[in-house]
Amino acid sequence: MGHCDTVTTIVNPTGSMNVLSSHEVSKLQDTSKTGLYTLFRQCALAVLNCESEKDNAHELMAEHEDFDIRIIQEPRGLKLELINAPACAFVNKKLILGVKENLFSVLRDILYVFSEMEEQGLFELNEPRDVTNLVFEILRHARAFIPKQPPNIVVCWGGHSIGREEYLYTKVVGYQMGLRGLDICTGCGPGAMKGPMKGAYIGHAKQRISKGRFIGLTEPGIIAAESPNPIVNELVIMPDIEKRLEAFVRLGHGIVVFPGGPGTAEEILYILGVMLHDKNRKIPFPLVFTGPKNAAEYFQRIDEFIGATLGKEAQALYEIIIDDPAAVAETMKSGLDKVTRFRRASKDAYYFNWELTIERSFQETFEPTHESMAALTLTHDMPPSELAANLRRAMSGIVAGNIKESGIKTIQQHGPFRLSGEPELMQRIDELLSSFVAQHRMKLPGSHYEPCYVIDN
Amino acid sequence: MGHCDTVTTIVNPTGSMNVLSSHEVSKLQDTSKTGLYTLFRQCALAVLNCESEKDNAHELMAEHEDFDIRIIQEPRGLKLELINAPACAFVNKKLILGVKENLFSVLRDILYVFSEMEEQGLFELNEPRDVTNLVFEILRHARAFIPKQPPNIVVCWGGHSIGREEYLYTKVVGYQMGLRGLDICTGCGPGAMKGPMKGAYIGHAKQRISKGRFIGLTEPGIIAAESPNPIVNELVIMPDIEKRLEAFVRLGHGIVVFPGGPGTAEEILYILGVMLHDKNRKIPFPLVFTGPKNAAEYFQRIDEFIGATLGKEAQALYEIIIDDPAAVAETMKSGLDKVTRFRRASKDAYYFNWELTIERSFQETFEPTHESMAALTLTHDMPPSELAANLRRAMSGIVAGNIKESGIKTIQQHGPFRLSGEPELMQRIDELLSSFVAQHRMKLPGSHYEPCYVIDN
Amino acid sequence: MGHCDTVTTIVNPTGSMNVLSSHEVSKLQDTSKTGLYTLFRQCALAVLNCESEKDNAHELMAEHEDFDIRIIQEPRGLKLELINAPACAFVNKKLILGVKENLFSVLRDILYVFSEMEEQGLFELNEPRDVTNLVFEILRHARAFIPKQPPNIVVCWGGHSIGREEYLYTKVVGYQMGLRGLDICTGCGPGAMKGPMKGAYIGHAKQRISKGRFIGLTEPGIIAAESPNPIVNELVIMPDIEKRLEAFVRLGHGIVVFPGGPGTAEEILYILGVMLHDKNRKIPFPLVFTGPKNAAEYFQRIDEFIGATLGKEAQALYEIIIDDPAAVAETMKSGLDKVTRFRRASKDAYYFNWELTIERSFQETFEPTHESMAALTLTHDMPPSELAANLRRAMSGIVAGNIKESGIKTIQQHGPFRLSGEPELMQRIDELLSSFVAQHRMKLPGSHYEPCYVIDN
Amino acid sequence: MGHCDTVTTIVNPTGSMNVLSSHEVSKLQDTSKTGLYTLFRQCALAVLNCESEKDNAHELMAEHEDFDIRIIQEPRGLKLELINAPACAFVNKKLILGVKENLFSVLRDILYVFSEMEEQGLFELNEPRDVTNLVFEILRHARAFIPKQPPNIVVCWGGHSIGREEYLYTKVVGYQMGLRGLDICTGCGPGAMKGPMKGAYIGHAKQRISKGRFIGLTEPGIIAAESPNPIVNELVIMPDIEKRLEAFVRLGHGIVVFPGGPGTAEEILYILGVMLHDKNRKIPFPLVFTGPKNAAEYFQRIDEFIGATLGKEAQALYEIIIDDPAAVAETMKSGLDKVTRFRRASKDAYYFNWELTIERSFQETFEPTHESMAALTLTHDMPPSELAANLRRAMSGIVAGNIKESGIKTIQQHGPFRLSGEPELMQRIDELLSSFVAQHRMKLPGSHYEPCYVIDN
Repeated sequence: MGHCDTVTTIVNPTGSMNVLSSHEVSKLQDTSKTGLYTLFRQCALAVLNCESEKDNAHELMAEHEDFDIRIIQEPRGLKLELINAPACAFVNKKLILGVKENLFSVLRDILYVFSEMEEQGLFELNEPRDVTNLVFEILRHARAFIPKQPPNIVVCWGGHSIGREEYLYTKVVGYQMGLRGLDICTGCGPGAMKGPMKGAYIGHAKQRISKGRFIGLTEPGIIAAESPNPIVNELVIMPDIEKRLEAFVRLGHGIVVFPGGPGTAEEILYILGVMLHDKNRKIPFPLVFTGPKNAAEYFQRIDEFIGATLGKEAQALYEIIIDDPAAVAETMKSGLDKVTRFRRASKDAYYFNWELTIERSFQETFEPTHESMAALTLTHDMPPSELAANLRRAMSGIVAGNIKESGIKTIQQHGPFRLSGEPELMQRIDELLSSFVAQHRMKLPGSHYEPCYVIDN
Repeated sequence: MGHCDTVTTIVNPTGSMNVLSSHEVSKLQDTSKTGLYTLFRQCALAVLNCESEKDNAHELMAEHEDFDIRIIQEPRGLKLELINAPACAFVNKKLILGVKENLFSVLRDILYVFSEMEEQGLFELNEPRDVTNLVFEILRHARAFIPKQPPNIVVCWGGHSIGREEYLYTKVVGYQMGLRGLDICTGCGPGAMKGPMKGAYIGHAKQRISKGRFIGLTEPGIIAAESPNPIVNELVIMPDIEKRLEAFVRLGHGIVVFPGGPGTAEEILYILGVMLHDKNRKIPFPLVFTGPKNAAEYFQRIDEFIGATLGKEAQALYEIIIDDPAAVAETMKSGLDKVTRFRRASKDAYYFNWELTIERSFQETFEPTHESMAALTLTHDMPPSELAANLRRAMSGIVAGNIKESGIKTIQQHGPFRLSGEPELMQRIDELLSSFVAQHRMKLPGSHYEPCYVIDN
Repeated sequence: MGHCDTVTTIVNPTGSMNVLSSHEVSKLQDTSKTGLYTLFRQCALAVLNCESEKDNAHELMAEHEDFDIRIIQEPRGLKLELINAPACAFVNKKLILGVKENLFSVLRDILYVFSEMEEQGLFELNEPRDVTNLVFEILRHARAFIPKQPPNIVVCWGGHSIGREEYLYTKVVGYQMGLRGLDICTGCGPGAMKGPMKGAYIGHAKQRISKGRFIGLTEPGIIAAESPNPIVNELVIMPDIEKRLEAFVRLGHGIVVFPGGPGTAEEILYILGVMLHDKNRKIPFPLVFTGPKNAAEYFQRIDEFIGATLGKEAQALYEIIIDDPAAVAETMKSGLDKVTRFRRASKDAYYFNWELTIERSFQETFEPTHESMAALTLTHDMPPSELAANLRRAMSGIVAGNIKESGIKTIQQHGPFRLSGEPELMQRIDELLSSFVAQHRMKLPGSHYEPCYVIDN
Repeated sequence: MGHCDTVTTIVNPTGSMNVLSSHEVSKLQDTSKTGLYTLFRQCALAVLNCESEKDNAHELMAEHEDFDIRIIQEPRGLKLELINAPACAFVNKKLILGVKENLFSVLRDILYVFSEMEEQGLFELNEPRDVTNLVFEILRHARAFIPKQPPNIVVCWGGHSIGREEYLYTKVVGYQMGLRGLDICTGCGPGAMKGPMKGAYIGHAKQRISKGRFIGLTEPGIIAAESPNPIVNELVIMPDIEKRLEAFVRLGHGIVVFPGGPGTAEEILYILGVMLHDKNRKIPFPLVFTGPKNAAEYFQRIDEFIGATLGKEAQALYEIIIDDPAAVAETMKSGLDKVTRFRRASKDAYYFNWELTIERSFQETFEPTHESMAALTLTHDMPPSELAANLRRAMSGIVAGNIKESGIKTIQQHGPFRLSGEPELMQRIDELLSSFVAQHRMKLPGSHYEPCYVIDN
């Protein structure tokens, strides 16, 4: 493991985030275990590590043990002192402006989400309405709502670890969407999360759109493994994976899914599970699965898996388009027009999908442990929407075991997670996951993949 | 009492304030006594009554009994329905944009200050540091901090009821300050609060300053009597008179005092009492008392009163400039340069005067009742700073009895407030107040003034 | 004559006008008689003399004999060196930004209009179409056209020398027009040219219009007597009085006429003469004469004069509104709506009134000399439009004799101009002019007025 | 030759270019041979053909015989009617905004450069000062000067026909320059002219630079072969190749040369010939030749050719950097800092290099014909600067024969151009050109290249 160069410097914010109260500064500087410092340092490091091609949060932290970040109150506002920060975030010792902005977004959300919200006990919410309100308030605080803007946010999901051909394809899809004035929202890592942004950016350039939005939604557990690309010009750190997923579907107006691994599968299961809810049937939500020619088989498998587990109704919720970026962009564009008409008719806001009903099973935090993973009920004897919820949890656990710091540690200590359930279903899950392994979708290429799970079937 | 024309219409916000959660909407629509509706309606009416020359909140409310305001959630955000709103706020049935912005500032602050803050129990704060933090957070939430902006906010205090000559003088002072790029902050009523803004606006025009700040700081008790002028482009509603005074001295960088009545005297006593604190001696704070030639005697009396009550040290804190607008502007300008250098040296923020020590006696809410007024200790046997605090409270009570809705009611029911204390001091207070009466500074001209107080001496 | 303070300094432009070729710099620095230097110096002095209450160009020049202006090429562009410039244009030795902008507008137009245009022989144009094209090109070069902007430019005409009450009235009319989003265009001097701008500026402030246009159209002969107010944010120097008048009626969308003297009469005769043309009958052009109560008689006389000279048809072209600013603003607003509809229907541009036919008699430069004034045919035996043209010339001559440098010199040397013609007509002219004298509309108050004309009747 | 889809539509400009006088419209609509219509149509077609991978102007014109463009005067300004325009410029039948802007830049320059300038006889200029003034005025008219902007325009030269690896390399160099805030200026075709812009755009994105400049300088003879990429956000059409070259070196602050063919060689010879002038010795002008590893040999040959023809002094003017994009960007950045210091010291403008002396031999239009090519003196018996001038002309002729409409026709009719001169020199020229042929740098790959020249040696 080669040692990365580092830079020690003081950075000066440009936006409005340099206005902290003395109370807030003291909270951030609290280095005790219960303070916010650890969380802030970790997220800051992830943002600074923007050009990294690593997806192992554990390694990242180890490699940058000597990294530190401090807050300095200054006459003209607040400054940050960075000590031994990764050099890749700098040009001539000067922090790249996009990285700087994202760094201050981290600061903003750490304070708001993890300090203010927590102080008010907002994390023990049980009522779906309250959880939704929390998601709303975090996004509003991050100024993610632009009231009169007609629906144009396309969420792009897909693997952080994809091949060259797939990556180039995501760029062209992004370019075609950018030419049509669509904005992009992703989980803000590399691969299928970076390609569409780069493409859309060039599309916007040609259309002279200078205020295009490149929204990255992340959470503390995932940010280290999926460092936000500096093209992301609106970074929001949600409290956990479930609220991040809810933010995607309430803030975004449509979704394009590129090939990916278990994280992508988790996302697919989430949106399908939600859309299968009775109350959501009439709500338009454009959903396209797409990839280049060589991804045709991949999506065929996904489609079969969905058919076999969630049924035809679930299959009717998406469209698969192979190797046709312009068609993907057109499909989203016309889908968003439908969304616009629906929102206008139902008097729902453009900027937040209040109408969508999301059950507790999709909102509850799922903490993947050997116990919770083993306890998941996986059988056809349950409503498709509930099965989707559990399958989503299973995938979430595998993502944690693969790339999240806590998950990796757990697996190192206690061996792989066990999943069990109805044999036929387990067989299908096993096949799907095996295909991810075979296609190097579990981890970035080059690294050997050791499964973090065992399927009992 | 002639009946004002009214307009019923729906207004559509332009800014970012149209993003409310469903939870917030329900709070505002709560018409029960404990809800926010009453407060919101009253402040909204005050803002809409922008061209009014009335200073009697009670009358205003009575006259517009049938006024109502409702919130409508719409696909593209939030709208307000105004029912029987004062016609003066409209041009061709269309709400004047400045009034509209101020209306939404009211909404913003009612929700934040009176709902969110209250829910968190922030109003029972006892620690000075906590009160200051609250003032900070309200101002920050209203986006009143512009981090890198060097100190240039001049607070203008003075009477809402002043003569034509004095009014024109405040305009010229404002013009000279505007030519020098200074921004204006006032209590946002008519008279000495409107003149400097109008003048500064023309000064800014000549200097092509298009983003000049015209900040109005008010509070629910005073807003109805001192309707914000639509030139005010940043309106903030503080919770009470004490936090409003603290906001003035922490947000503003210097103060110009024009002639005025008991409200102005309250303000003068406040700033002098604060600046007399030992810890504040080295903090530069430009303070100028000024008026046209005919105001020379007025300020001589004020000066004598201060000398006799608070002493020479207090007199050293201000400069009196008669009939020389350019000199006032120059004095402020060079005073602000000193402030800038001081803040830079002491590493204090430009946008908020954290350094200033404000004692509890100036922060505590003073509720003027017959009891509390009678209980005020007014004697030379106390530190000047404490005497200033009590004199400030006395003046505050008289303002309430003159123009605030609750105060007027109390006086109507129980007769005038009684003030008592050391005879010589009471004599001086009586003289000062009598001069205000003689000069028509108690109420707007035209109305007969019936004192709301009795001085025991 | 008290001596004005002066400032010597170097000014640095902010806009795009600091890009001159070396060829252009040498032309401006040419101090020989045929060079542009003299013209540039004179106009620059007028702009710098912004707060002056003088209307005598001759005196202004004499008083500032030692004023000089030089161009300096600098690495970052061009600078101007001002030597002994009037101190009133400065705040703390720094040029007021609005004055600076206007100074560079002078530079722009001197170069374009008086250098480039002249080199191309564009001043000997005879074809009306070519003259109109020249007016178009000068305005376009000054960026006075904003293509998609619906018609909202109201030209305000009226005296530079008006009483306090009239002046305040022009402010209120401007305020009411500003509240309705109308922009103001004037001849850019004091009095009725400054009042509406100040008022409209406050109206715009309340409507949060930050890009209001305050257009001043002047010409080298008049600029020294009617210094542009720094509120003027678009200053254009037309080559002569006739092209300036054409610019008013092609760029403006409607006209409000306040009380004034012979200059205002010239303007009224111009617009009526033009609108009386057969081809212009169907073109809507809102035209309102207005003033406070005490101006009622004044407009009655003007109206009678028009009735007696140009007839009822001319009287039908305007509306007289006394003491009702809101009604004036409403009348203009609805008139402009008609203009908008007409332009849309006739496919004419919004920003330039190509449709208007203007005869050579209104375009030709009239050089007022004792000969040319004496030679004017003034009789009822000619079409009203032609009579209007000659009456316009007569008034133009009187303006020159009153306030223009060349005119004043001529009168000093050879005595007053003589006007002769049909006795009844001469009688009416004499009465009108006498009333101007009696009402102090010839020159600024305080100065004794010695008529520069003799009426033979 | 597959037939391109076409679109017929009306386009509405957004900028200020929709303000034309009736005189100008008639000039553009003049379809006679001497009118501007032919030129306008041809350049417009080139701009619309933005995604084309063709470099043969002749073919382009033939393929779009039925394309037409007309000007429509509309109430709100001017519109363009496009008939049978290439579909690639549209998204859903709507013209890409960047293409639209470039289309109106064409209109602007055709009118200004080819109409107004020509009417004034500015094309028969002989004095170098006058030619430079003309270049200045065209650029100023196109608003290409931003006065206070410190030098940051890097001109990128290189082939329109380059391999994949070279193309990706130009992108990375552009990216590194974009990260350093540098703007890009090119000849605005594909290949080495497009790559740096795309890369710099992403670099700007990361640095949140939203007003980056992507300047394309072209001329009517080359535009059809090198269609401006829609990322170009400032397009200027210079009158001919020599004025375009002068614009590059006076507007740009430094030059990066990527691998290319005879056009690139022409550019290298031009800048070296100019910089070799005695008066230019002290003027800093950063000049870097760069390419990926596989271009090392290419630049070695160029370097040898320069050493052998123009000598060591010429070789000292540039630096060759192989395969190190960050070093290229750093070298330019520090070079531009030197330029900044020099301009400041010499009081030269930042936006236009007035100091540079350019001899007539580099300014004179060279019309490549069989006669003029044959007549070129190519021998060592002349000053290096003069030899550079003639070599430049020779390369210019070959470019014309390869890709310009007129050149291709001439070659088709009369066979290849002949070049003759000193045998050793001719030998070197032959080798250089042969290497271009071998490396497919003459024409876009895929097409067979038939040399348009014969070397006599």
